[in-house]
Amino acid sequence: MNQTDLDRLASSIGPLDVASMAAARERQGRLTKPPGSLGRLEELSIWLAGVRGEPLPQVRNKVIVTAAADHGVALQGVSAYPREVTGQMVLNFLNGGAAVNVLAACAGANVIVVDAGVDADLPDHPALLRRSAGRGTGDLSTGLAMSRAQATSCVLAGAELAREQIANGADVLAAGDMGIGNTTSAAAITAAVTGLPVSAVTGRGTGVTDERLAHKIAVIEQALALHRPNPDDGIGLLSMVGGFEIAFLAGVLLGAAAGRRPAVLDGFISSAAGLVACAIAPAAQDFLLASHCSAELGHRVLLDHLGKRPLLDLSMRLGEGTGAALAISILEAAARCLSEMATFDSAGVSDSDDVLPSEA
Amino acid sequence: MNQTDLDRLASSIGPLDVASMAAARERQGRLTKPPGSLGRLEELSIWLAGVRGEPLPQVRNKVIVTAAADHGVALQGVSAYPREVTGQMVLNFLNGGAAVNVLAACAGANVIVVDAGVDADLPDHPALLRRSAGRGTGDLSTGLAMSRAQATSCVLAGAELAREQIANGADVLAAGDMGIGNTTSAAAITAAVTGLPVSAVTGRGTGVTDERLAHKIAVIEQALALHRPNPDDGIGLLSMVGGFEIAFLAGVLLGAAAGRRPAVLDGFISSAAGLVACAIAPAAQDFLLASHCSAELGHRVLLDHLGKRPLLDLSMRLGEGTGAALAISILEAAARCLSEMATFDSAGVSDSDDVLPSEA
Repeated sequence: MNQTDLDRLASSIGPLDVASMAAARERQGRLTKPPGSLGRLEELSIWLAGVRGEPLPQVRNKVIVTAAADHGVALQGVSAYPREVTGQMVLNFLNGGAAVNVLAACAGANVIVVDAGVDADLPDHPALLRRSAGRGTGDLSTGLAMSRAQATSCVLAGAELAREQIANGADVLAAGDMGIGNTTSAAAITAAVTGLPVSAVTGRGTGVTDERLAHKIAVIEQALALHRPNPDDGIGLLSMVGGFEIAFLAGVLLGAAAGRRPAVLDGFISSAAGLVACAIAPAAQDFLLASHCSAELGHRVLLDHLGKRPLLDLSMRLGEGTGAALAISILEAAARCLSEMATFDSAGVSDSDDVLPSEA
Repeated sequence: MNQTDLDRLASSIGPLDVASMAAARERQGRLTKPPGSLGRLEELSIWLAGVRGEPLPQVRNKVIVTAAADHGVALQGVSAYPREVTGQMVLNFLNGGAAVNVLAACAGANVIVVDAGVDADLPDHPALLRRSAGRGTGDLSTGLAMSRAQATSCVLAGAELAREQIANGADVLAAGDMGIGNTTSAAAITAAVTGLPVSAVTGRGTGVTDERLAHKIAVIEQALALHRPNPDDGIGLLSMVGGFEIAFLAGVLLGAAAGRRPAVLDGFISSAAGLVACAIAPAAQDFLLASHCSAELGHRVLLDHLGKRPLLDLSMRLGEGTGAALAISILEAAARCLSEMATFDSAGVSDSDDVLPSEA
């Protein structure tokens, strides 16, 4: 039944709406500025029109889903921080003290904190959504991280959250993460999908030493040798080397795409969820927005593989949805320029003497 | 007397406050995130502490000064748009229909529109500040753009506006421009200061054809051959190849620096004003923030010369203060992370096991 639901989700993702994109592009040419002079803001607004299927799309109700989970592989010593930090940071999210809380407030975005599988007793809190698939995954270097059924359930739970948020008015959804050990999982997914050597996609995460980095690479190589994942099998990737939060976020991204909303990637882990989402439903790719290029090694090649050019490059490497929060503000600015600027006609401004070839 | 005022302005610019920077840097190390993981947001917050002389600086009251003026050289056919567009766009700014109005609203910033020397009869409007030095400059390719006395008066008028805005609570000031023909003036200043060939710093501005670009380069080469400006004489640069709005904006930047406020550069013209400001008072350089790298040829080398790394690279090339508006939001986000995030102690989050060398 779950497989049927997943197939239904994947097949519900349509293409970008070219008519709305053409209307937005035409309007951009009439706004009071030289053609193309707003650069990527113009491109963003046209893309957004295609996502939403509206010539004048709005970005008002903004949601960042920050999903947290623990990782069995963390017991192998792949992180600079102890495992209990995952649960401690969830409490910090709920109390509003983390970077994503501050940056979401700056962007006017709501943060939904999801327990996708944290190994801690978390208190009830109105901002906490309990969707735990267990108290951390299995150790991916010695066995499965989770079963295929668990992976499918996590993805469907994420998609269901996206569906609910869109029904409640969300205009944009972003995928943020928290989970000690999760850059190990994300690097394993990235190596499996891109075919690049593990050492080319594995970074220092929270900031490990040279020695621990070498160990982390060896652990991932061991995992890939053990599982030999098929890069086109998204559920297989999750079950072999994934994380509960990565599975949930892949579902959020798929749900956003199915609901014709921008699906905003954050850093390396969130973007690994994007890889998984595209393995499950290649049509989701057009709905993904790369918010920033993380300083984490592997993120740039991951985004290249997705064919995405990040909006920002601020040497951030925190996750949580922090880069996505900054990018959402730029997406909103792009949408507002398209909708709110005057046209040459309405403002009585003379147009150009010269005619240059229009830009791609 | 004006020269004395200018000297007094230049000598009132102090160094960054290293004690406040050290306090901000120390606090960044205690916030609930891996050290350095907020990348340039951390650097920005530390720099801002140094600018303001406060360990927890705020960015609440944001002001974008958009100064407009006409250019005698526009009559040489160096722009894709007719001269009357300058005045028409001022009306568009006053009516809230331009890109800078929309992007400033997104950033919560106030736009002050300045007539620094527009060749049009502009109506009274509460948002219009009349500081006209004349109805456009002289043609820089055949004679002086303005007198040294005019240049000095424009700079002092800009600095006085900054002083007033700071007295009224401005936390940050940005310099935006409008003026048909002003990329010609900015390219002349950039070539004179950097010593680079005119062809390496002259772009298409509003979007001229190949033929018009070649003509524009020839006009600038003629101007530099005629005047042979001294790159260390800011007032001389303005008088020979400047614009009234560039002079005014140089003053705004100097006034911001003197008042210990971030002086935010926008695109190529605004940054040329930054070059002039640093020629007048080298101490101003530390107070400048490069918001974005414009698509206009010459902007990147100009910023390199100033030793500034832009925050954004979105292929924008509009001016007005549009890139600065986006960057101000990022500056505010950086300041809020420093002030509002929880510390490891206050949130009860465990710190790292590993000790990495701290980042520069």
